[in-house]
Amino acid sequence: MKVGILTSGGDSPGMNACVRALVRVGISNGFEMIGIIGGLQGLLDQKFRLMEARSVANIIHRGGTVLTTGRSKEFRTLEGQMKAAQILEKNGFDALVAIGGNGTMRGLHKLQQVWNGRIIGLPGTIDNDIYGTDYSIGFDTAVNNAIDAVDKIRDTAQAFDRFFLIEVMGRHSGAIALDVGISCGAEAILMPETVTNLKRVAEDIVAGRERGKNFAFIIVAEGDEEGDAMEISRKMSGLVGEQCRVSVLGYIQRGGNPTRQDRILATKLGAYAIDCIKQGKTGILVGEVKGELAETPFEESYTKKRSLDSYLIGLIDALTI
Amino acid sequence: MKVGILTSGGDSPGMNACVRALVRVGISNGFEMIGIIGGLQGLLDQKFRLMEARSVANIIHRGGTVLTTGRSKEFRTLEGQMKAAQILEKNGFDALVAIGGNGTMRGLHKLQQVWNGRIIGLPGTIDNDIYGTDYSIGFDTAVNNAIDAVDKIRDTAQAFDRFFLIEVMGRHSGAIALDVGISCGAEAILMPETVTNLKRVAEDIVAGRERGKNFAFIIVAEGDEEGDAMEISRKMSGLVGEQCRVSVLGYIQRGGNPTRQDRILATKLGAYAIDCIKQGKTGILVGEVKGELAETPFEESYTKKRSLDSYLIGLIDALTI
Amino acid sequence: MKVGILTSGGDSPGMNACVRALVRVGISNGFEMIGIIGGLQGLLDQKFRLMEARSVANIIHRGGTVLTTGRSKEFRTLEGQMKAAQILEKNGFDALVAIGGNGTMRGLHKLQQVWNGRIIGLPGTIDNDIYGTDYSIGFDTAVNNAIDAVDKIRDTAQAFDRFFLIEVMGRHSGAIALDVGISCGAEAILMPETVTNLKRVAEDIVAGRERGKNFAFIIVAEGDEEGDAMEISRKMSGLVGEQCRVSVLGYIQRGGNPTRQDRILATKLGAYAIDCIKQGKTGILVGEVKGELAETPFEESYTKKRSLDSYLIGLIDALTI
Amino acid sequence: MKVGILTSGGDSPGMNACVRALVRVGISNGFEMIGIIGGLQGLLDQKFRLMEARSVANIIHRGGTVLTTGRSKEFRTLEGQMKAAQILEKNGFDALVAIGGNGTMRGLHKLQQVWNGRIIGLPGTIDNDIYGTDYSIGFDTAVNNAIDAVDKIRDTAQAFDRFFLIEVMGRHSGAIALDVGISCGAEAILMPETVTNLKRVAEDIVAGRERGKNFAFIIVAEGDEEGDAMEISRKMSGLVGEQCRVSVLGYIQRGGNPTRQDRILATKLGAYAIDCIKQGKTGILVGEVKGELAETPFEESYTKKRSLDSYLIGLIDALTI
Repeated sequence: MKVGILTSGGDSPGMNACVRALVRVGISNGFEMIGIIGGLQGLLDQKFRLMEARSVANIIHRGGTVLTTGRSKEFRTLEGQMKAAQILEKNGFDALVAIGGNGTMRGLHKLQQVWNGRIIGLPGTIDNDIYGTDYSIGFDTAVNNAIDAVDKIRDTAQAFDRFFLIEVMGRHSGAIALDVGISCGAEAILMPETVTNLKRVAEDIVAGRERGKNFAFIIVAEGDEEGDAMEISRKMSGLVGEQCRVSVLGYIQRGGNPTRQDRILATKLGAYAIDCIKQGKTGILVGEVKGELAETPFEESYTKKRSLDSYLIGLIDALTI
Repeated sequence: MKVGILTSGGDSPGMNACVRALVRVGISNGFEMIGIIGGLQGLLDQKFRLMEARSVANIIHRGGTVLTTGRSKEFRTLEGQMKAAQILEKNGFDALVAIGGNGTMRGLHKLQQVWNGRIIGLPGTIDNDIYGTDYSIGFDTAVNNAIDAVDKIRDTAQAFDRFFLIEVMGRHSGAIALDVGISCGAEAILMPETVTNLKRVAEDIVAGRERGKNFAFIIVAEGDEEGDAMEISRKMSGLVGEQCRVSVLGYIQRGGNPTRQDRILATKLGAYAIDCIKQGKTGILVGEVKGELAETPFEESYTKKRSLDSYLIGLIDALTI
Repeated sequence: MKVGILTSGGDSPGMNACVRALVRVGISNGFEMIGIIGGLQGLLDQKFRLMEARSVANIIHRGGTVLTTGRSKEFRTLEGQMKAAQILEKNGFDALVAIGGNGTMRGLHKLQQVWNGRIIGLPGTIDNDIYGTDYSIGFDTAVNNAIDAVDKIRDTAQAFDRFFLIEVMGRHSGAIALDVGISCGAEAILMPETVTNLKRVAEDIVAGRERGKNFAFIIVAEGDEEGDAMEISRKMSGLVGEQCRVSVLGYIQRGGNPTRQDRILATKLGAYAIDCIKQGKTGILVGEVKGELAETPFEESYTKKRSLDSYLIGLIDALTI
Repeated sequence: MKVGILTSGGDSPGMNACVRALVRVGISNGFEMIGIIGGLQGLLDQKFRLMEARSVANIIHRGGTVLTTGRSKEFRTLEGQMKAAQILEKNGFDALVAIGGNGTMRGLHKLQQVWNGRIIGLPGTIDNDIYGTDYSIGFDTAVNNAIDAVDKIRDTAQAFDRFFLIEVMGRHSGAIALDVGISCGAEAILMPETVTNLKRVAEDIVAGRERGKNFAFIIVAEGDEEGDAMEISRKMSGLVGEQCRVSVLGYIQRGGNPTRQDRILATKLGAYAIDCIKQGKTGILVGEVKGELAETPFEESYTKKRSLDSYLIGLIDALTI
């Protein structure tokens, strides 16, 4: 059995741990494991590298991805997909495993229609917006990175009696924003999934000041409907009558050594992907749902929408009295 | 409704986030929230402090516990338990919430037999050995602390071609050891739950050297049946024919700012404990099982044994080829 | 001897360690130590708090400042300065110690002209731009915070073959930029003190790509003459012919637990400030120059310009071949 | 000019940054740079590797050493030293740079007597016990690692009203202990350089309890004359009448990404070593003294004793009132 593996889309911490598990569990099962360099574009460019057990030594604890990643315009076309299928065929691949986000799952779904090898998708994105897994690989590390950053900004906010707007990643999802906001005691959490009412947020901040709160945070996801951090900050400054400081956390959320959760999840999902290939499964995203390994058809994985934890959302007001 | 809250047993990161949620969600429900200082002994000593919304400001991100904790010999006696019941009665308490480990749940179970207020237990221990919750508050932070430490030791092990035995916490459970071991790529993980065969471990290390591994880690839980770290290290040095270095991580695992998982879990469980009191529930540990809030009678919580993830245990050999 | 202490200007990590040393060494010398809340404005508002040995317990390891800080427009006027002098007189202060940046030293210099108590300044700013000390309290922590952030961004840059522009603090000084740039192996370091030639930087990046460098960083200080990060990034994208990603580190640089260097420096300078008061000294900034405690008249401290390490600057080209 | 470089003795964070500077500045000067793998023993075993500019890419931020290190019994003999000289001669080396501790400098001094190439030593050890430099490469990171650990233990100490004895590295020097102790507010710092009076320490702790201190730390260097941590803890438990908890920080002090200070120092010293070779210098340790690059004959570097900062030592009592 010859298995290609690649990482695709934005990198996320834990991808290396996942690649390691795939390679070693694959080899333990007698498979030939081939790393594809540079994501789906690397497949089209036939950038292959034989992976041996030692090829993945000393990477479990590192962020980024040793296979590197990338986005491919060519693969989005039918021609690209058919070319990929021919390359896989010609090179004798029996299976392909790709770690990535929604875009990657969509790509695998297309590939499945033109290639009859076994294809398994694994959820690797900090955004945690893939249907079919409670957590995607990288989400926990990204949120912990953001929490560390906000804990630091808190020192300044407190020393200076200020209020801050902090933007976290999430163009289409408030998953990061919600967990960062709850974890750091944010006064308000602005997310694409909920209706943002800046006037009410401003009133809460003013009321908090009156109750003795000397500083406040608002956490906003990139994709909030009220605009980007700069725009919301301008509006908030006006509504509160006090300068709203802005911090855009940006790329620091993606990097760094992965956490326990991401290393364990990545290892389990990688190992289970090999189990699936062995059993002849194909066309599925492998994830973990409610503590159990779970399989979801590609199409559902990127078309269905994960919902945020409504119990947590319901607590925000009580937690910030 | 007058509700006492206390933290008991060893401290664990996230206890503060939990106390904050209890206090604020309690107050939002119109409850009077009373902090009991110093654990169950503090209850016997009537060390009470009115908790207001601002009393728990700026603690969500801190390790330790603002209520302090402790162990109480007196409470383990029937006299102690009856005295506690009288104190609760006399002071007009309607409910008690305690965050702690197995010993605390056993104590609450006893108290329940002599006091008819509502009693809720919350799982706060780094050991993750309480039945009725997939994760206890503090476990994730403790494992991440240990992982950080092992990642650092890796630098030296690699620079020096050495093999290391690293002891993590867990007198009766290999939960920390298993997750640290998998997360750090340990050659072997020695736990009370599995049979430890040092001879086989030594053979694996020697074989690894021959395959080009220039260093190796073994992770051992405090409670492994082969003895403590010093003893196992002596045996291993003999079996491998090379000095086995030892590091006992100890107390550094308990401290530090809590992680995302611990802050979120602590917040949810604290809020849900207030929900339970409102609904008249008593005699239960509140936890999260397979992603859902769950209630478990005290007796089960400390008598039933949680089992480790057998899928993960089954991967150790393949992952270290 | 009654001594007032305050923190002023932007907060910097280590201010708390300095306040602790001032209070405890002051009390050990029989002084009465008074904390002034909210910086120079707090002096004008007479926000005083008696500091006892226990008032500064458990703060040595925390960022921010327990005395809080702020900027005062009123104090910049002669009226404000005379009002401050009267308040100090009326309240029986014999001495004042202020921890802050250049603006604070200028303020103390003015105050010295209207009040004849003993006045000592201590360098507390992350910018490291005060003359009379090799390092200001907070600089080392800020740079280490920035380094941590850049090390994380490196994971993504490497995974994605990208080039990044990262903006660090420093409106008038490249001190942070230089140390971050050298420490992280930046391709170029853009600072107000040196002539920025974007065309040459772009050529270096293109040439580096050709030599096999798959990613690159440029570190830019806020105050670089070519503009802010967004502007430089636009120019660089054009010159290199490839999108230049931007990350503005912002407030995360200021916070977090102080490092060894900042805690030790803060402790020594705080203790030495008390020595100076005892000896009747006044009108000086206390710093450390070439490893020795040093005293510098206020006027020099904010008018003279510190120069950057030219040996380090001279190495940038060789280090990035 | 053909230059060999090696890292020797215990690894220390920053060695990689130093190797990088040596290689790149060397190449920029037209030198041929050869990495010697495994320290002085690697020289005897002729483990050579040509270092190119890309060989040291992506290592500036990593602990450990890519050249690996080790201790060599053979090199301690005259035969070993003469063999090394012959190997250097035969392979056409013009110069040798070694990064290490006192033992390494002693070895270089011996080698200098039998080989007439240029030999430069660089101080790389976490112990900071080399004469001829204010800081050795690795010391700052090690102390910051220890501080992080003690800050975590503080959470538990505080939650539990306990007193702790924490052992840090330093068999012959209290340099780490002093900086950790001052930085973490230790009640006492036990070092080989000062007379340890456990009875007085115990009295201080008891008196502190009476003044309202609910927890305390003692920091002890490995080499204190009163014995190891276990022994001192037993004595202290008896003297204080309360259990003294022990934590031995051990190997976690050595690892991890180096700090600003270590990266900058390593880079400067590496670059300056190349300058020295160019100028025909030999037989010297290159360090930084009072902020200036400094050269010290090998013999002085390992025979003269660095003294600890007596001003800091004099502050301990006042800081812990």
